[in-house]
Amino acid sequence: MAIEAGNGTGGYRRIRLGMVGGGQGAFIGAIHRIAARIDDQFELVAGALASDPDRAKASAKDLGIADDRAYGSFEEMARAEAARADGIEAVSIVTPNHMHGPVAKAFLEAGVHVICDKPLTSTVAEAGTGGAGQEDRQDLRRTHNYTGYPMVRQARAMVANGDLGEIRLVKVEYLQDWLTERVEATGQKQAAWRTDPSRSGVGGCIGDIGTHAYNLACFVTGLELDELLAQLSTFVEGRRLDDDVQILLKWKGGARGMLWASQVAVGNENGLTLRVYGSKGGLEWAQENPNQLWFTPYGRPRQLLTRGGAGASREASRVTRIPSGHPEGYLEGFATIYAEAARAIRAATAGEKPHPDVVFPTVEDGLAGVKLIDAAVKSSAANGVWVRMT
Amino acid sequence: MAIEAGNGTGGYRRIRLGMVGGGQGAFIGAIHRIAARIDDQFELVAGALASDPDRAKASAKDLGIADDRAYGSFEEMARAEAARADGIEAVSIVTPNHMHGPVAKAFLEAGVHVICDKPLTSTVAEAGTGGAGQEDRQDLRRTHNYTGYPMVRQARAMVANGDLGEIRLVKVEYLQDWLTERVEATGQKQAAWRTDPSRSGVGGCIGDIGTHAYNLACFVTGLELDELLAQLSTFVEGRRLDDDVQILLKWKGGARGMLWASQVAVGNENGLTLRVYGSKGGLEWAQENPNQLWFTPYGRPRQLLTRGGAGASREASRVTRIPSGHPEGYLEGFATIYAEAARAIRAATAGEKPHPDVVFPTVEDGLAGVKLIDAAVKSSAANGVWVRMT
Amino acid sequence: MAIEAGNGTGGYRRIRLGMVGGGQGAFIGAIHRIAARIDDQFELVAGALASDPDRAKASAKDLGIADDRAYGSFEEMARAEAARADGIEAVSIVTPNHMHGPVAKAFLEAGVHVICDKPLTSTVAEAGTGGAGQEDRQDLRRTHNYTGYPMVRQARAMVANGDLGEIRLVKVEYLQDWLTERVEATGQKQAAWRTDPSRSGVGGCIGDIGTHAYNLACFVTGLELDELLAQLSTFVEGRRLDDDVQILLKWKGGARGMLWASQVAVGNENGLTLRVYGSKGGLEWAQENPNQLWFTPYGRPRQLLTRGGAGASREASRVTRIPSGHPEGYLEGFATIYAEAARAIRAATAGEKPHPDVVFPTVEDGLAGVKLIDAAVKSSAANGVWVRMT
Amino acid sequence: MAIEAGNGTGGYRRIRLGMVGGGQGAFIGAIHRIAARIDDQFELVAGALASDPDRAKASAKDLGIADDRAYGSFEEMARAEAARADGIEAVSIVTPNHMHGPVAKAFLEAGVHVICDKPLTSTVAEAGTGGAGQEDRQDLRRTHNYTGYPMVRQARAMVANGDLGEIRLVKVEYLQDWLTERVEATGQKQAAWRTDPSRSGVGGCIGDIGTHAYNLACFVTGLELDELLAQLSTFVEGRRLDDDVQILLKWKGGARGMLWASQVAVGNENGLTLRVYGSKGGLEWAQENPNQLWFTPYGRPRQLLTRGGAGASREASRVTRIPSGHPEGYLEGFATIYAEAARAIRAATAGEKPHPDVVFPTVEDGLAGVKLIDAAVKSSAANGVWVRMT
Repeated sequence: MAIEAGNGTGGYRRIRLGMVGGGQGAFIGAIHRIAARIDDQFELVAGALASDPDRAKASAKDLGIADDRAYGSFEEMARAEAARADGIEAVSIVTPNHMHGPVAKAFLEAGVHVICDKPLTSTVAEAGTGGAGQEDRQDLRRTHNYTGYPMVRQARAMVANGDLGEIRLVKVEYLQDWLTERVEATGQKQAAWRTDPSRSGVGGCIGDIGTHAYNLACFVTGLELDELLAQLSTFVEGRRLDDDVQILLKWKGGARGMLWASQVAVGNENGLTLRVYGSKGGLEWAQENPNQLWFTPYGRPRQLLTRGGAGASREASRVTRIPSGHPEGYLEGFATIYAEAARAIRAATAGEKPHPDVVFPTVEDGLAGVKLIDAAVKSSAANGVWVRMT
Repeated sequence: MAIEAGNGTGGYRRIRLGMVGGGQGAFIGAIHRIAARIDDQFELVAGALASDPDRAKASAKDLGIADDRAYGSFEEMARAEAARADGIEAVSIVTPNHMHGPVAKAFLEAGVHVICDKPLTSTVAEAGTGGAGQEDRQDLRRTHNYTGYPMVRQARAMVANGDLGEIRLVKVEYLQDWLTERVEATGQKQAAWRTDPSRSGVGGCIGDIGTHAYNLACFVTGLELDELLAQLSTFVEGRRLDDDVQILLKWKGGARGMLWASQVAVGNENGLTLRVYGSKGGLEWAQENPNQLWFTPYGRPRQLLTRGGAGASREASRVTRIPSGHPEGYLEGFATIYAEAARAIRAATAGEKPHPDVVFPTVEDGLAGVKLIDAAVKSSAANGVWVRMT
Repeated sequence: MAIEAGNGTGGYRRIRLGMVGGGQGAFIGAIHRIAARIDDQFELVAGALASDPDRAKASAKDLGIADDRAYGSFEEMARAEAARADGIEAVSIVTPNHMHGPVAKAFLEAGVHVICDKPLTSTVAEAGTGGAGQEDRQDLRRTHNYTGYPMVRQARAMVANGDLGEIRLVKVEYLQDWLTERVEATGQKQAAWRTDPSRSGVGGCIGDIGTHAYNLACFVTGLELDELLAQLSTFVEGRRLDDDVQILLKWKGGARGMLWASQVAVGNENGLTLRVYGSKGGLEWAQENPNQLWFTPYGRPRQLLTRGGAGASREASRVTRIPSGHPEGYLEGFATIYAEAARAIRAATAGEKPHPDVVFPTVEDGLAGVKLIDAAVKSSAANGVWVRMT
Repeated sequence: MAIEAGNGTGGYRRIRLGMVGGGQGAFIGAIHRIAARIDDQFELVAGALASDPDRAKASAKDLGIADDRAYGSFEEMARAEAARADGIEAVSIVTPNHMHGPVAKAFLEAGVHVICDKPLTSTVAEAGTGGAGQEDRQDLRRTHNYTGYPMVRQARAMVANGDLGEIRLVKVEYLQDWLTERVEATGQKQAAWRTDPSRSGVGGCIGDIGTHAYNLACFVTGLELDELLAQLSTFVEGRRLDDDVQILLKWKGGARGMLWASQVAVGNENGLTLRVYGSKGGLEWAQENPNQLWFTPYGRPRQLLTRGGAGASREASRVTRIPSGHPEGYLEGFATIYAEAARAIRAATAGEKPHPDVVFPTVEDGLAGVKLIDAAVKSSAANGVWVRMT
């Protein structure tokens, strides 16, 4: 039931990893590092961890990175690592959104595989080129990490297998409450950059969590969005970006649905939920209890499927580490993104394609997210009109 | 903790009740009768229970109604009962939707109080006049029964009390799955009339359950809807009315929200849920577990309030019959509508106003439901445009 | 899906019912009255509702009982009603425990069917004779009301059908918290008599709710208890009876289990739960959410069965009033006990046996409860030894 | 909110770790390795991973361990590593139970810190000496890993803080179903050794999971057990050890309770739950949803506390890695045991005491588990008598 025999390297040499961003006080960098460690496929050996050089050095020391590989800038790091025989093979980009594009470009040009926190860039144009030539795009792994949960994999497999029949309704929600008050004005660092257009782009809630919700819906259903109609709101006075997003969805093939993302839904911590209903059955999944998946075949009793339990599919089992009833969580789901990236990187190094079971978010997913943001902003600015996702 | 001392008549004479519709094989009539019995304020003594005279007689016999008060038509019943010294004081109308208007008119003209299943009529015009003069309108009690649940009463009181601060988001869902397949073609009686425009009017799912959802949202929040934008769908081939409804809501005062009603959401039985979020706190309630109410004050732990338990408000307690932990259900919520109607009828008979605590759905609520249907149908027909609720 | 066509009398004359106990301020009497009304098989026409004559009269007036049938004592009522042509056919006994025996005896001797709140009497001897001759025993219906819940009926049917294989484990809990503090010293009437040995007998928590738990376990599994080992505790200083009971169970045939009842388990309102595990599957049911039943077949996904939903058995459906998703509650479960009693009384009147589907608690169940109390008290007094249930 | 700044080494050199047991096909070894990696405080550099030398070598290769530190026996490993300047500083013992004692003894004598899977040894005598001199005992860290969950830490802190008042009831359950059938006869390796007295000792279910349940109850409540009365059962024919355990508990100071552990409770995956009720409040926690903790203060609404959420205590927050709503799971709880061990090892190396906040299971906990097994087996063998835990 394990990702690799014994959850170790599986006999492989660890992939040499660098990191840009993620220094002291940052949030998502620490997550990426744990995720990279869990399945033991990577070794963190270099970093440009902060824009301030002193903080960059101190952060590297905290992480056990050698002094000579603690860089003051990503440009320097790309150059220096490319020149080393034991230079990094992959880099994790965990900076604020506006830096994703330039950093990715620098490392792709240096021949380094890129694993980049979502979203890719703030404009469709940049994302379209991935900050580099078309041929390099497959080197970019996005960390839409919620797709790493085993029961999300199972849901996707069940839809693909026809267990739900023809999909009719796709309902996705991502509810938080941490921006209920104007915390960005109190010096809260996470809130500050996420509500600042110069660092987050045109979308607030839609960019931060709306794209996660959308990615999850697409990943599970395999559907493509045809048109959307959005209502973006800013409830907190003085805030400069949206903090609530409500979108009507028309999917190609006739399915309908809604996406609701909010950062002011008081009482919700990280309420990402997906419900899919078809002509033969339904599925319901909630990120806060990720080891369960409700399956509701029409005319039969509701079934509670569990990670590792009876009814678990091959797609779920291959990314499962421990037995049923022992909950895996957010970090394990995230680790699966890294483990899948390791498989893809090793296959690429060997000049092969990864095994068909291997699934990870690509630059296409990043691009889709950017298109969602643009379309939603455009629809809402026009007071809610249908916008086609060309 | 009881509705009346000892849950009996409270020393009052029982109100003489008649019923139109609800004969053998009908569903909602039986519900009304149990609801009327639970708090012992009514005595069913007359009925025009079916359009077929033989079935009308047989149905009356089943219910212990005397032969001479088992009528073949509602017109005859209105005339005959008005002429009796011991004639009915109130009538319950539980016919298919298209008959609500004519029957109500007949009994109001006969001086009989009317309790009518929702919706009132199929057109705004009819509803506006209530089938009778303006002065009689308050005689019509609608049975938007979900407002009878104690924790719904509590939610309303908490919003009114400011416990949630300024309301920002109102999300209501009503999900069922009984129309997932084309059961109306198989002779299922309930499905047949509810999907037939000639008996149900222009709205299918929107009229059958969308209006319940809307009424619940309005009842709890006290908000008025300003504009809506709707997407009505018919997923089942051959069906003549909508079976899924998704609506964006703009409330007066700045709150936003969504209403989703579906009869093809596989795995949902009677999934009416309401979530309300304000600047200071949130509330979540689900009809299938009606004795609980989540209260989520910002920055404090989530609280699970229970009917009859710690934190229960006066508004909830006055419509509570039994101690906490002993679940009350759908029938008790419905019974509260009848008990409140009894209080209003007795007050009217005495030429008084009912006690300010007494709350029940009125013709205004019925009118609001009809307006919702009309606006939603209009918006959807125009492919989703904002329609103002004048 | 209904108990009788249309949930009315089904064409029968209503059974004339009297009540002893249940006057103003009492709790369980009001419950019995609502339960008797819900399915419309009874008409309350007489009562000796309180020991104080003035309160008895006032209570009768509240309930709409005619003045001449509002009695000052149960003895007078038994005599007077037996003498009337239209005298009561059945009586509900809802007094404190110590009066159950004498009242039952009086009415059985007067030829009146008896419906008696549990427990029957305080001693095995009295219960053994039922306060009357052996031949009359079947006339006593106990109101172990939790057996009226449809999903409890379904659980029983599934065990009998072998769906669980051979039963190995039976775990029943009944947790409340209303006696966490010494409320009996504050004038709380319910607490006062339930913690007073002169009115409740030798068992406190064991008698009040332990017997309900035991009855539920026996009802569902069909097993007979072989031996028990009990630990009764009194946690609240100054209390004179047990407020917590923990019992090890050995069932005939080899199953094992535990019964835990507590009135000091803070945070529990009316937490009656049953779990049964066999060689092939398991069942879990909780009274506070009574419309659901978990079925866990070995090696297959967990299934959530619902009242009226897919997988509902005939035994559940025949005592179901409304569709799935519309919760029935405690009062409906209680009403089923009355409806079943009505069927049994009508069969007895006709000199017939009731239909084999008809199930209701009898004096045997009452006797079993008394034996449980005696054995538990005896075991605990000996510091926890096995006591055989001869 | 992090264990160490940035969830890296915190500037420390990684502790050199060896492992005994845990080769290919083993379960718990992989868990230990992930747990050791998550917070990056250890580096796995040596191992005697299997009793078969070839499998030992192959297993080491899978894990990226250098060939010359892949040992064929634990004795050889202890000798060789003690002789190296860069020898291991700590060893994880993850063998079947019967080897825990000898292996621990060898490494303690070699001056290596020991982290040992529970239970320590099969006899009280061995455990008492820890396989070594009294003075070394504190070097043994047990991996009663469930105590690593943040909300378990919080529960312990709340009890210690008096939030529950005087503890009255402690109820712990650990329910599984994986031994419902005789899987040990089918070659299932885990089942084979766990049901074999020669490798597991005198206790089956009681030793495997009963000790975990007991440890959790003791850890949270801080109570000491005074007496127990046990009923061990073997439901599956041909099985040689108990597969179900039911124990009555008397705690010092007057609290009462029960422990139920089962491996034949069909439908339960890893159902470890704890309920504690005191004179002022209660707590409920379930391992399968470990990020939540119910707190039920008497007379106030139930509160749902969450890891990282409102109301989280310092004791929970210091072992929390990621924000509320992002579930941490079993592996993170286990990782906390390793992170706490690292802090203790570093303090010991520096000749200091660890910070008072640092909590981890010690040999005393291991000893307590062994005593539980012995007492339970003894009580059950005498058909259920009270046995004092001297």
